[in-house]
Amino acid sequence: MTDNPTAGLIIIGNEVLSGRTQDANLKYIATRLGELGIALREARVIPDVPETIIATVNEVRARFDHVFTTGGIGPTHDDITSECISVAFGVPWEIHPVAFEKMNAAYKPGDFNAARQRMATMPRGASLIETKASIAPGFSIGNVHVMAGVPRIMQAQFEAVATTLRGGLPIISRAVHSKGVMEGAIAAGLTAIQGRYSAVDIGSYPYYREGGGGVSIVAKGTDAPAAEAAIREVTALMREIGGTPVQGEPPA
Amino acid sequence: MTDNPTAGLIIIGNEVLSGRTQDANLKYIATRLGELGIALREARVIPDVPETIIATVNEVRARFDHVFTTGGIGPTHDDITSECISVAFGVPWEIHPVAFEKMNAAYKPGDFNAARQRMATMPRGASLIETKASIAPGFSIGNVHVMAGVPRIMQAQFEAVATTLRGGLPIISRAVHSKGVMEGAIAAGLTAIQGRYSAVDIGSYPYYREGGGGVSIVAKGTDAPAAEAAIREVTALMREIGGTPVQGEPPA
Repeated sequence: MTDNPTAGLIIIGNEVLSGRTQDANLKYIATRLGELGIALREARVIPDVPETIIATVNEVRARFDHVFTTGGIGPTHDDITSECISVAFGVPWEIHPVAFEKMNAAYKPGDFNAARQRMATMPRGASLIETKASIAPGFSIGNVHVMAGVPRIMQAQFEAVATTLRGGLPIISRAVHSKGVMEGAIAAGLTAIQGRYSAVDIGSYPYYREGGGGVSIVAKGTDAPAAEAAIREVTALMREIGGTPVQGEPPA
Repeated sequence: MTDNPTAGLIIIGNEVLSGRTQDANLKYIATRLGELGIALREARVIPDVPETIIATVNEVRARFDHVFTTGGIGPTHDDITSECISVAFGVPWEIHPVAFEKMNAAYKPGDFNAARQRMATMPRGASLIETKASIAPGFSIGNVHVMAGVPRIMQAQFEAVATTLRGGLPIISRAVHSKGVMEGAIAAGLTAIQGRYSAVDIGSYPYYREGGGGVSIVAKGTDAPAAEAAIREVTALMREIGGTPVQGEPPA
């Protein structure tokens, strides 16, 4: 659709794959990458298993311009992302002196124990992702950006990384929705409109609300006039079959 | 950890990768698979791109006992999962006569148009996943179960499939949490406990609440006595460092 840079996301954590934790990071990262003009092409949720983390990181970093990981960089035994990244890159996993000094200064005397020192241990060559949201930093190595799983900390780290990324044309989005319109009734018309606007991705999403649902049609791409023209045609199509189109997405 | 059957999940849809839609299906499926004794090993979120869908389905179905897909089986041009599954399996994509007859009977005369007939078009050899939640069925072929993206419909389809699956020993979960306890303060003790209970996976999850956070420790596995013994040891560890352990996960 565009020659914007691409990205992959790796969500690391048994707690997401077991259903314990509802992931909230994909939506945030996806939205922000769109604004930065970086196309998120795939997200993978994987467990805290070293071989899986290593293989996934190596596969994904070879395929996309940017890779983000979330989770597994805390002080406990199930936090193994950092050492796995070292293995994936084939570099030693060692104390990062700047991270070590800063963390040592931030903890109370005696509190910077061996477990916390693991959070200052990183692949050789890593550059720190420092934020006010946590004492322990994330880090980048090559095209891989290693962030916390806790959403508040992850978001701060993402924003710190974002300023360093090569972006592209922002992905804009235009939408129209209509109550009472069924997808199946406009499908043929939508196909024809998508055929005329190959520069935009047109998505069709039914919605359900108290008092009746409908369909929301979203056009996304880097070409705002094309997205707007496509949505004008969808608006006309909805009207033609007796719908009452309203610009934008339906209220939540 | 166990020889329970394994599963992979493929979430298909540009709307999830763009941040428009918060996925709700992973958590549901993960939780239910745990109850059924099926280990969800990986989830992938991929876009509505044929080559990506085909390659991902073939990779994932070769690696896990069960594969679930969500999304892309509606009537519009961006619903391409079904034909991609046909290509992945190397079988014709053709009208499923039972699905066709049932859908034809369910729609008002004239409403079962070409777009909706696509929802009765499936890989040869597919068996239907029929529910009261939608007129259009999902389907299974080989070890791949193809379901809707709309959570209400997906859940009904999952439950219909669930009755047909070979499961394993249910994964049980025991937890203890304590306000004011930091992960870094119990990390060494946790590592030792995990070492003594290799049959369970012990996870450490910080939490944040108004009025102060803490840490929640979860032991999961098929061996309930082992999980309970591990959590008893974690409880003692929390007490040792001045925490106030409470059994179970913290309230939301």
